[in-house]
Amino acid sequence: MRVTIWNEYRHEKENDQVRSIYPRGIHGAIAEFLKQAGFAVTTRTLEDPEQGLDQGTLEQTDVLIWWAHKAHEEVNDHAIERVKQRVLAGMGLIVLHSGHFSKIFRNLMGTTCDLKWRQDGEKERIWVVQPSHPITRGLGEYFELPEEEMYGEHFDIPEPDHTLFISWFEGGEVFRSGCTYNRGKGKIFYFRPGHETYPTYYDKNVQTVIRNACEWAAAPSAVVPHYGKSEALEPILRLAKK
Amino acid sequence: MRVTIWNEYRHEKENDQVRSIYPRGIHGAIAEFLKQAGFAVTTRTLEDPEQGLDQGTLEQTDVLIWWAHKAHEEVNDHAIERVKQRVLAGMGLIVLHSGHFSKIFRNLMGTTCDLKWRQDGEKERIWVVQPSHPITRGLGEYFELPEEEMYGEHFDIPEPDHTLFISWFEGGEVFRSGCTYNRGKGKIFYFRPGHETYPTYYDKNVQTVIRNACEWAAAPSAVVPHYGKSEALEPILRLAKK
Amino acid sequence: MRVTIWNEYRHEKENDQVRSIYPRGIHGAIAEFLKQAGFAVTTRTLEDPEQGLDQGTLEQTDVLIWWAHKAHEEVNDHAIERVKQRVLAGMGLIVLHSGHFSKIFRNLMGTTCDLKWRQDGEKERIWVVQPSHPITRGLGEYFELPEEEMYGEHFDIPEPDHTLFISWFEGGEVFRSGCTYNRGKGKIFYFRPGHETYPTYYDKNVQTVIRNACEWAAAPSAVVPHYGKSEALEPILRLAKK
Amino acid sequence: MRVTIWNEYRHEKENDQVRSIYPRGIHGAIAEFLKQAGFAVTTRTLEDPEQGLDQGTLEQTDVLIWWAHKAHEEVNDHAIERVKQRVLAGMGLIVLHSGHFSKIFRNLMGTTCDLKWRQDGEKERIWVVQPSHPITRGLGEYFELPEEEMYGEHFDIPEPDHTLFISWFEGGEVFRSGCTYNRGKGKIFYFRPGHETYPTYYDKNVQTVIRNACEWAAAPSAVVPHYGKSEALEPILRLAKK
Repeated sequence: MRVTIWNEYRHEKENDQVRSIYPRGIHGAIAEFLKQAGFAVTTRTLEDPEQGLDQGTLEQTDVLIWWAHKAHEEVNDHAIERVKQRVLAGMGLIVLHSGHFSKIFRNLMGTTCDLKWRQDGEKERIWVVQPSHPITRGLGEYFELPEEEMYGEHFDIPEPDHTLFISWFEGGEVFRSGCTYNRGKGKIFYFRPGHETYPTYYDKNVQTVIRNACEWAAAPSAVVPHYGKSEALEPILRLAKK
Repeated sequence: MRVTIWNEYRHEKENDQVRSIYPRGIHGAIAEFLKQAGFAVTTRTLEDPEQGLDQGTLEQTDVLIWWAHKAHEEVNDHAIERVKQRVLAGMGLIVLHSGHFSKIFRNLMGTTCDLKWRQDGEKERIWVVQPSHPITRGLGEYFELPEEEMYGEHFDIPEPDHTLFISWFEGGEVFRSGCTYNRGKGKIFYFRPGHETYPTYYDKNVQTVIRNACEWAAAPSAVVPHYGKSEALEPILRLAKK
Repeated sequence: MRVTIWNEYRHEKENDQVRSIYPRGIHGAIAEFLKQAGFAVTTRTLEDPEQGLDQGTLEQTDVLIWWAHKAHEEVNDHAIERVKQRVLAGMGLIVLHSGHFSKIFRNLMGTTCDLKWRQDGEKERIWVVQPSHPITRGLGEYFELPEEEMYGEHFDIPEPDHTLFISWFEGGEVFRSGCTYNRGKGKIFYFRPGHETYPTYYDKNVQTVIRNACEWAAAPSAVVPHYGKSEALEPILRLAKK
Repeated sequence: MRVTIWNEYRHEKENDQVRSIYPRGIHGAIAEFLKQAGFAVTTRTLEDPEQGLDQGTLEQTDVLIWWAHKAHEEVNDHAIERVKQRVLAGMGLIVLHSGHFSKIFRNLMGTTCDLKWRQDGEKERIWVVQPSHPITRGLGEYFELPEEEMYGEHFDIPEPDHTLFISWFEGGEVFRSGCTYNRGKGKIFYFRPGHETYPTYYDKNVQTVIRNACEWAAAPSAVVPHYGKSEALEPILRLAKK
C-alpha cells in the first residue's frame, strides 16, 4: 500500500520548540512508524513543486495523510481540486488535527468545520465508542494524551458515517475525535490529536490508529459506475407503442 | 413559515411544451399548492436583481426550494456562498430534480452528485422505505408517475442521513429519490421528480412530499454554538501547578 | 398529543430521600411539566392492572415515556411484546436514564445496552452535537447538572441514527446521552439524565429536551405498508412466454 | 479466517428440484467457493447435535453464515441466545435471503423484518449504491440474476449503517438487498439473493459478495470495554469537599 504524507511544514521550520519535537517534520515522524508497518511511504510538503500535490504523486497514492495549520489559504485551488477528484475516485484521505480547517476537508464536508479550541496543554482522554470498527483494533477502551490542545463541540461537520472516538478534556469539553465518511469511491477519516507543540505522533496508540486508518482507507478495487446518458436495460412501453 | 421558491426559469420561456405545462413557471406551480397549505410563499428567478438570492431575501426565508437545470454555471459564486451560509445557519433547503447538479447542492455534499439519466418518458414508481419519517406522512406505500425522466444509480452523493424513497424505473434502473442531510444547523432534502416536460408538480403525492418537506426543514430555534478560542470550564491541573 | 408516562415507581415508595425529591413519583414530576406544555398526559406504573401496559392504554398513546431501574425483570414479557408492536406500528418511545437496561429498550436495540456507571454525585455537562435537530430547540450549546450518576462509554448500542448530546463527567468519562432511532414506523429517543436521588426532572433544560422529544416522536400519520405475498405490478416476461 | 455455514437443510432433502440444484445442500455449495478462497470452512445444519450451534463451534467461528426458511421456529431459543452473544462479542454474521425472518436476525434488528415477496421467477438486477465499500470490490456497477424470488419494500429493518445494494425487480418492486449493521463488537451483513429453487449461489457475482462479506465481517482484535461499576479517573469535587 502506498501512503503519501502531506505536511504544510511551517511550524517545524519557524519554531524551535516544534523543531525540537519533530526534527524531521511531523511528516517525518509519521513516515517512520508507517514504514515500519510495511507501507510504501512518500512525504510531500507545501514547498515541493506543485505544492507536492501534482497529478503524478496523487495517482501513485492509495492513502493521503494531511497535516496543516497556518497555511491553509496558501494551498492552490487547482491542487485542492486534484486531491478532491482523486478522493472521489477512490484514494483514501486521513485528515489530522488542525487539518479540520483545510480547504480539502471543508470542501469534502460542505460545512464550516469550525470548533472550539484552547491551547493550555490539558489532559485528553480518548474513548472508543465503536469497538467493532477496524480502526480501533489493538486499542484499549480508552487512551490518554497527557498534554494536548483542546478541541470542543460543537464541531460543525456532517453527522459521521461512524463516530469512533469521543474525547474528554480536562477543561470540561468533549469532542468527536474520530469520524469516518464516504465520499464518492473514497473513504475519509478525521482524527483529532496532533498539536505541533506536543509529541503526540510518538504516542503508540495514536500510531495504532493512523496505521489502522491507512488499511481501512485503502480501496484498491472499487466499482466503476457509468454516469450520464444511458440506454434502457428493459423495454419501455411508451416507446413500444409508437 | 416563509418559503422561497427559486427557479432558474429558462425552459418555460424558451420551450413551448414546457410553457404549456407550466404557464407561470415551475415556481408558480409550486407556489400555488404551498400557498394553499398556508405558507408565506415568495418566488425568485435567475432574472431577478442579484439573481434573486440577495441577503435580504435569504434572511426572510425559512425554507428555500431550488429548481434549476441548464444554467447552473450562470449562478454567481457569491450568491451561492450566501445561500450556503444561510443553510449552515439554519435555513432549510429542498433541492428538486436536476438541482442535483447545482453549485449549491454539490457544494454542500462535497461529491460530484453525478448520476445516470434517460429522457424516454418512462414510468417511475416511487417506494417509501422510511415510513416513520414526517416527510412520508399522507402517502401510500408507493406512488407512480406515468412519465418521467429516468435518473439511475450510482448517484454520487454522501450516504444520506435517511433514505426515504427509492424509485423503480421501467427501463431497469433504481434511484434513491428522497434523501435527507444535516449541514451545520440546516436541514437539506433532495427529491428526484420533476422534469420540466412532464406535469409532475401537479401530482398530489409529489405535492404532499414537498409540503411535508417544508415543514420538516424549517428549524426556527436552533442552538447557537460558540466557535473559536474558549475559556476552560473546569480547572486544568498543569496550570494550577504553575 | 397523548403522552403516557410509565414509571416502575419503586424507589419513591421505598426510599425516603427519593420520595422527598419526587413526592408524587418521577412520573408525577414529568407529568406536571408536560401537562403545562398542553399535552394530554396519562401516567401508569408497575402496580397498575396489566402492569399499566394494557392494549387499551397503548392504543390511546402517541408517545410513551419509560423510567425504570430495579424491576426490569418483573415486567411481563407479553406486556413488553405489546409495547414493542405499538412502537413498530408508530407509537413514539422515550427511554430515560436507567431504562437503558429495560427489556423494551434492549429488545428494540438488539444489543446488551450495557455501560459504565458510578454513583458519586458528580457534575455532568451535556453538550449539543446536532444543533439542527428539533429535540435541541431552545437549548444553549450545553447545559449542566450539578450532581448526577455517571454513565460512561462504551455504551453498547447500535450506532444511533443521530447522536444529539454527549456528556462530559467530572470523573473522566464521556457518554452519548441523547440518541435517536427509527424502528418500524416508530421513533425512539434515549435520554440519559435522571437518577432517582437527584432533582434532575425539575431542571428546565431536561424538561425542554423531554418536551421537544415528545413532539418529535409523535407520528400520527405514518404510511401503512403491505407485507407478505404480493401481485406483480408489471408484466413478467417468463410468465408471458408460457 | 474460520467461516461456519449454518443451513436449515430441509428443502434440499424434501424437494427434488432443490436437491437437483444443490445436491450437497446450499451450505455445501457455499462451502465450496469459500474453501477455494482459502478460508477454513465448517458447515452445520439443524440436524446436528445442539442444532449445530454449540458453544464450541461458535467459539471457533470468526464469521457465521445463516441460511434458513421454513424451520425458523424450530431453532432453540438457547442456541439463538448463544449466537447473539457471540455476535455481540465480535463474531461476524452474514444473513442470507429468507434468513431475514430468522430469530437471530429479528432479535438483533429489533424489528419485524417483514417484507413483500412473490415467487414468479422474475429477473432481478442488483445495483451497487456504495462503490467505496469493501463488500462491493470486484463487481461491476450492477449484476443480474435471470430468475429469482421477489422481495419488495417496505423491508421493516432499522435504517442500515450502509446500504450497499438496491434490487430492481421485473414485477415493479425495489429492495435494499445489501445492508450492513454493527451490533456490539460484531458486524452483520444481510444479503438478499438465494431462493432455494434457483442456482443463485453458483453465480460468480453472488459468490464475490459473500466472499468479500466474510473478509469485512471478520474482526479478530476488537476492543474489550469494561462494563458495570467504575472508579473515577479524575478527582470529583463533591467528594474532595467531604
